Amino acid sequence: MKKHNFYAGPSILPQFTLEKTAEAVLDLNGTGLSIMSISHRSKDFTSILQETKSLIRELLDIPDGYSILFLGGGASLQFTMVPYNFLNKKAAYLNTGSWASKAIKEAGFFGEVMVVASSKDKNFSYIPKGYSIPPDVDYFHITTNNTIFGTEIKTDMEVPVPLVADMSSDIFSRPLDVSKYGLIYAGAQKNLGPAGVTLIIIREDLLNKVERVIPTMLSYKTHVENESLFNTPPVLLIYASLQTLIWLKKQGGLSSMQKLNEEKAAALYKEIERNKLFRSTVENSDDRSIMNVCFVMQEEYQDLETSFLEFATSRGMVGIKGHRSVGGFRASLYNALPIDSVKALIKTMQDFEKTV
Amino acid sequence: MKKHNFYAGPSILPQFTLEKTAEAVLDLNGTGLSIMSISHRSKDFTSILQETKSLIRELLDIPDGYSILFLGGGASLQFTMVPYNFLNKKAAYLNTGSWASKAIKEAGFFGEVMVVASSKDKNFSYIPKGYSIPPDVDYFHITTNNTIFGTEIKTDMEVPVPLVADMSSDIFSRPLDVSKYGLIYAGAQKNLGPAGVTLIIIREDLLNKVERVIPTMLSYKTHVENESLFNTPPVLLIYASLQTLIWLKKQGGLSSMQKLNEEKAAALYKEIERNKLFRSTVENSDDRSIMNVCFVMQEEYQDLETSFLEFATSRGMVGIKGHRSVGGFRASLYNALPIDSVKALIKTMQDFEKTV
Repeated sequence: MKKHNFYAGPSILPQFTLEKTAEAVLDLNGTGLSIMSISHRSKDFTSILQETKSLIRELLDIPDGYSILFLGGGASLQFTMVPYNFLNKKAAYLNTGSWASKAIKEAGFFGEVMVVASSKDKNFSYIPKGYSIPPDVDYFHITTNNTIFGTEIKTDMEVPVPLVADMSSDIFSRPLDVSKYGLIYAGAQKNLGPAGVTLIIIREDLLNKVERVIPTMLSYKTHVENESLFNTPPVLLIYASLQTLIWLKKQGGLSSMQKLNEEKAAALYKEIERNKLFRSTVENSDDRSIMNVCFVMQEEYQDLETSFLEFATSRGMVGIKGHRSVGGFRASLYNALPIDSVKALIKTMQDFEKTV
Repeated sequence: MKKHNFYAGPSILPQFTLEKTAEAVLDLNGTGLSIMSISHRSKDFTSILQETKSLIRELLDIPDGYSILFLGGGASLQFTMVPYNFLNKKAAYLNTGSWASKAIKEAGFFGEVMVVASSKDKNFSYIPKGYSIPPDVDYFHITTNNTIFGTEIKTDMEVPVPLVADMSSDIFSRPLDVSKYGLIYAGAQKNLGPAGVTLIIIREDLLNKVERVIPTMLSYKTHVENESLFNTPPVLLIYASLQTLIWLKKQGGLSSMQKLNEEKAAALYKEIERNKLFRSTVENSDDRSIMNVCFVMQEEYQDLETSFLEFATSRGMVGIKGHRSVGGFRASLYNALPIDSVKALIKTMQDFEKTV
């Protein structure tokens, strides 16, 4: 049976990425060597690294003055590295979910943290608006997409201080104005590649902003100066990510991708609205994520939750169980998810409704 | 032409690992999903993680009371995590090479560092002996194999304080007495798997040894308590590592592996001794690494260095150029390197000698 992969991450990657990666694991471009078995200082790999950076620059239209890094430790390590490198006295954070809360906690180890707004009062079901950012903070941190709660900040903010964004689950889903950001970080395992590599896009004039001593591996400066080759990078994961970028470009780049993503999300939200059994957990449609669509059973059909999950599973739907802090269901519609999978899910929802 | 892969790391992995990984990248055990595209919370992956830990426990005969972790950031991040978690006042380090020196530098950010002995005076060409370890230090740190300089500590030390060992380039090359160690860490990219995952074996009674506040991701306690699933681990890299462990067990485990490794190294050192063109950079044969064999041209044949490198390259030898801090040549003989590759290198050395 064909599987429809709605996992929230690690999640679906293009078939192109799978095939090219499998090929290179056996033999990299006819070299007789596996991509897993070559030195990170070899020409074979340094050219892969260069191509990966170039494609990211091209796809995101990154202006001069920004460096691109690939680090280990996931976005979670960035929760620590950001304040280690940037927090002198005070930083502002927007609390829009579990990951934002974790980032806030880590920043607290390094200085004063101002939570300028939070949607915790309603289980993070909306994106706060109308707050102000004090001009004397070292930076303002946001989580652009909240994977667990299905909300998303879908525009590039204009703020009076360096803007730091965790874009783990929506980077490459739409064109960005990178010039609005001081630092962007993103765990690869949604729209880019396999888990274990984190993409960092950093404005170079933000280095050397704090006086504290930073351990070498935790300093962005180390990695910028060594062009992301200070120590052995995750070679295989960068290679797989490159394949996704090549695929992205072939699909017409980020504008085409955004169009397709919006189409997929619109179709699913429409069905959630129409179907008597379900409701979205995010009231304001402007706040609804294009990447992670969260929905629950309507009050009167609560007891059908398990039945629907079983019904959907029997139709090949994978990974649609909602996170325990929201319940219900979550369908992640990352770049690589074909619209046919969304149609299959919609059909499943409709067919299940008929059985009720 | 068949390639003989002598890279120092990332380096050769078993053909079995390549084939199984390529297979799972396309389809994990007939699930219809790629190993790159499944949730780290899925049963498919948690059972892979369990099996990987179990096999490590079995192969290294790890006693109770130790946890196994898989972290990102490489051994270089461990240079920071070790003192962050263990250095209260003073730590002792043995300086046997570039990596040991880097570990020493990072520890200096956290407290007093005593270098109990160093072989820097002779470009790290030997393992220091006859030093003593003060009983009041928080731990003693060693680098068991010095990849760049071709030296190795081949026995398990008995020391009066917790022993911390960077075993990046010799773990799994011989049986270990893990009970002698407080913490072992190893970047995977030599004898285990692809670059990007670091294996940690930690004695649990060493947690909570310092008073400082440790950022969550840098605390071993976080990862021990969450069984290495605090955040998304590098799923694909752990899967590939598991395949190498399965292969290792099929080869008869670490005793068989040690026998084969010693045989490979003995054959190559013997040829270096015999051949008039070459000499080992490590005088004391007890200190010579079984994993990385470093050799240079004899004084009178210095000018043939480039010619030999070209000659060897034309015979399919890959990665035998020595590190710039030693010069000459380095042949890395990791577990997965077949003895036939060693024989091919020896034949190449003999044939080149005849041309002189």
